[in-house]
Amino acid sequence: MNSLIYDNLTLHTDKYQINMMYAHWVQGTLNDKAVFEAYFRKLPFGGGYAVFAGIERIVHYVQHLRFGDEEINYLREQEENYQEEFLEELRKFRFTGNLHAMKEGTLVFANEPLIRVEARVFEAQLIETALLNVMNFQTLIATKASRVKQAAGEDILMEFGTRRAQEADAAIWGARAAYISGFHATSNMRAGMLFGIPTKGTHAHAWIQGHDTEEEAFRRYAEALPNQVTLLVDTYNTLKSGVPNAIRIAHELKKQGKKLNAIRLDSGDLAYLSQRARQMLDDAGLNGVQIMASNDLDENIIVNLKAQGARIDSWGVGTQLITAADQPALGGVYKLVARERKGEYLPVIKVSGNPEKMTNPGFKDVYRIVNKETGRAEADYITLREEEDVKREERIKLFDPVHPYIHKFIDHYEAIPLLHPIFSDGELVYELPELQSIRSYHEKQLQLFWPQYLRKLNPEGYRVNLSMKAWQLKMDLIHQHQE
Amino acid sequence: MNSLIYDNLTLHTDKYQINMMYAHWVQGTLNDKAVFEAYFRKLPFGGGYAVFAGIERIVHYVQHLRFGDEEINYLREQEENYQEEFLEELRKFRFTGNLHAMKEGTLVFANEPLIRVEARVFEAQLIETALLNVMNFQTLIATKASRVKQAAGEDILMEFGTRRAQEADAAIWGARAAYISGFHATSNMRAGMLFGIPTKGTHAHAWIQGHDTEEEAFRRYAEALPNQVTLLVDTYNTLKSGVPNAIRIAHELKKQGKKLNAIRLDSGDLAYLSQRARQMLDDAGLNGVQIMASNDLDENIIVNLKAQGARIDSWGVGTQLITAADQPALGGVYKLVARERKGEYLPVIKVSGNPEKMTNPGFKDVYRIVNKETGRAEADYITLREEEDVKREERIKLFDPVHPYIHKFIDHYEAIPLLHPIFSDGELVYELPELQSIRSYHEKQLQLFWPQYLRKLNPEGYRVNLSMKAWQLKMDLIHQHQE
Repeated sequence: MNSLIYDNLTLHTDKYQINMMYAHWVQGTLNDKAVFEAYFRKLPFGGGYAVFAGIERIVHYVQHLRFGDEEINYLREQEENYQEEFLEELRKFRFTGNLHAMKEGTLVFANEPLIRVEARVFEAQLIETALLNVMNFQTLIATKASRVKQAAGEDILMEFGTRRAQEADAAIWGARAAYISGFHATSNMRAGMLFGIPTKGTHAHAWIQGHDTEEEAFRRYAEALPNQVTLLVDTYNTLKSGVPNAIRIAHELKKQGKKLNAIRLDSGDLAYLSQRARQMLDDAGLNGVQIMASNDLDENIIVNLKAQGARIDSWGVGTQLITAADQPALGGVYKLVARERKGEYLPVIKVSGNPEKMTNPGFKDVYRIVNKETGRAEADYITLREEEDVKREERIKLFDPVHPYIHKFIDHYEAIPLLHPIFSDGELVYELPELQSIRSYHEKQLQLFWPQYLRKLNPEGYRVNLSMKAWQLKMDLIHQHQE
Repeated sequence: MNSLIYDNLTLHTDKYQINMMYAHWVQGTLNDKAVFEAYFRKLPFGGGYAVFAGIERIVHYVQHLRFGDEEINYLREQEENYQEEFLEELRKFRFTGNLHAMKEGTLVFANEPLIRVEARVFEAQLIETALLNVMNFQTLIATKASRVKQAAGEDILMEFGTRRAQEADAAIWGARAAYISGFHATSNMRAGMLFGIPTKGTHAHAWIQGHDTEEEAFRRYAEALPNQVTLLVDTYNTLKSGVPNAIRIAHELKKQGKKLNAIRLDSGDLAYLSQRARQMLDDAGLNGVQIMASNDLDENIIVNLKAQGARIDSWGVGTQLITAADQPALGGVYKLVARERKGEYLPVIKVSGNPEKMTNPGFKDVYRIVNKETGRAEADYITLREEEDVKREERIKLFDPVHPYIHKFIDHYEAIPLLHPIFSDGELVYELPELQSIRSYHEKQLQLFWPQYLRKLNPEGYRVNLSMKAWQLKMDLIHQHQE
């Protein structure tokens, strides 16, 4: 086994999962069904929404779960507790449960189930860690990218973060997440090859340094790649050398019936430099040559540059996006909400010293309540599975449990179920959409919400409400534990 | 090709690298040699040092570089510019150059070469992106872990971050980096299997919720895993329920000649709860039962908890470590310092509007200057390759180029070369050390430095100096560009 190309992710899990699987096996409870929900408690970046991502990777992971010889031998050596019969049980392991999830690209909110797993506790426990690892990262980056997209408007956005990404997987899955949220391209060629994302690239400072003069370097680059060439103009001096040399090359290309696509600024005062460079290009009759900028950009810097009148047409966004630098983790959790006892599901709760860590008990569904007149979403509505009124689109009551006087009744609505079946009795029942269609779906999702929920700064809070029955169940279980 | 288990990292690079390779091929300069250095400009976390990591992954990457059919076909479809003969050249691609690097576990500083690549520009350019991606992440996490280790002293440290890591690679390589810097274990079983890191785990809240009472849940867990059991006591009420139940189980285990290893606190006021829990355990004659804590810990929280008299014996550190949350990217760069022209190396520089982005030109070496009397490091000293005085351990002058009056001469020193040959003419000439020996090497590295350089807060700056000749070369090239 070469450890560096070992792609079986079955042990991409925490030791305590295997320990709990073992304890269930010892106690004969491994086949008891359990229901878990994955969700996060707080929206990232102070924003009003998140963009869900990760299902393609999760589907693949679940389909390929296998304890092979490497895994079994490792577990045998590691843990004297584990009995041989347990290891034999692991050899037979397959995911045989039900998994429901939001579609990738869906706008999602805090404290609503994003993934729901109903399976033998033996299986549901194993997959917690990988599900969270994937969902947390991909959703985080899709959300960050959506904020950047909001700042950039119709400008071209390129994901340029690979060299600062947190290792190789983060680079490609982050590029994919950014594309879902409206980025136009990535610099990562592997992401391009694996996912069909358009790729873009210019050249490095090294290309310039590798020639005797900047002008020669530009000319030779343009000769080699005459279609869509972009020249990096800040290696020596942007306005005195870079832009004038680029203008010279642009004129040469023109004579050959070709065209300089853009110049790229990668350091210095981007507002000032872009304005001056624009003027110089325009004065030279090169209005068609675009200006591209990069250098530690994020949504706030882009908004500020635009407010200062920067003349930038396209943006290369790297570090801040691919690491979600201002909040590099989404705190998604995976919590038991119901468990089988004597053939029935018993709802369970976790009470906590930290009130926000309290869970919502019960086997639940979640609906997006869309006002039929406006076509806009009013709230996400979480019900117990057996509740019928919302399925029949009958009058429901939305209320804020902390401030119960804030409530309203809704009548004319469409209730869109948000959790879709992905695996049913272990079989994949979901056709993974093409990446392009996930991207379009996401764009349509944005239309479903009033702008005040979506704005980057101080958004209005979108309602995620428990039904009266789900709320009452929670209250009952809390009281039960307090007795 | 199944995109989700596709492990060829050859296209784990930016498009502009392939474009530059193509332009070199068109211009007939692909075989010109180039020298690149990878380094970072600023230490992370406001600290005084970083811990270098990533070489094992980089060695594997370089050895397996191959453009196969998938890569070639993809490039052909993607880019109308690329000629077929270029793609044929890529099929023959192997790394044939020289690569020197610091050893993993070495304490490293800003603006010194950590990796030096001397190769055909065609090869040196391709590998930039992946080298930086790996070096940046692994060095960042090793550095963060070293800070946590400093805060925790001799306490046991466990890496618990997988669910919040930025995708799967980050989880395992981050766990390895943390282990290099003195962590004792990880929860990630795949990291345990692939790298031989000890693994640890307790149980989840779900185990408790999965039983009718907490006491029953504890008892059944202890029955199943009687060796080294740790009980999570905060599912319902830490002091009223969790700790008393754990004490009951500890007594039962005692009667069977067994022992409760620890209780784990995962929420609430860890200072207060650990003190009260310690008292309760001691009062019950259970001084041997340890207290483990987790819940968004980092080096600062650990220091503060200790200052408040928290009675915690071991720490599970997750999100803050595995994402390096307070600075999730190390800004490592890879810059051309010399290039072949007419069979000789010509030093090159990048001047910039941002002065800190100016590069140090020339084919260079770096030495750690260790005072023979104290056995402590005085400075890292960067020379041009041809300089002999430092190799002969003759008098050298250390000086601060910004404040030249700050200088000193050093006579009695040992000069330890920090860049070790890893690949020579494309052949691996370095025996990758065992992980344990990297960990021990790192521990010894810490002994080499005065404590004032290592402290977490406001460390004294350790000197990284250019030799007079390297400095003069830089000045000459700057003046040359200004003319």
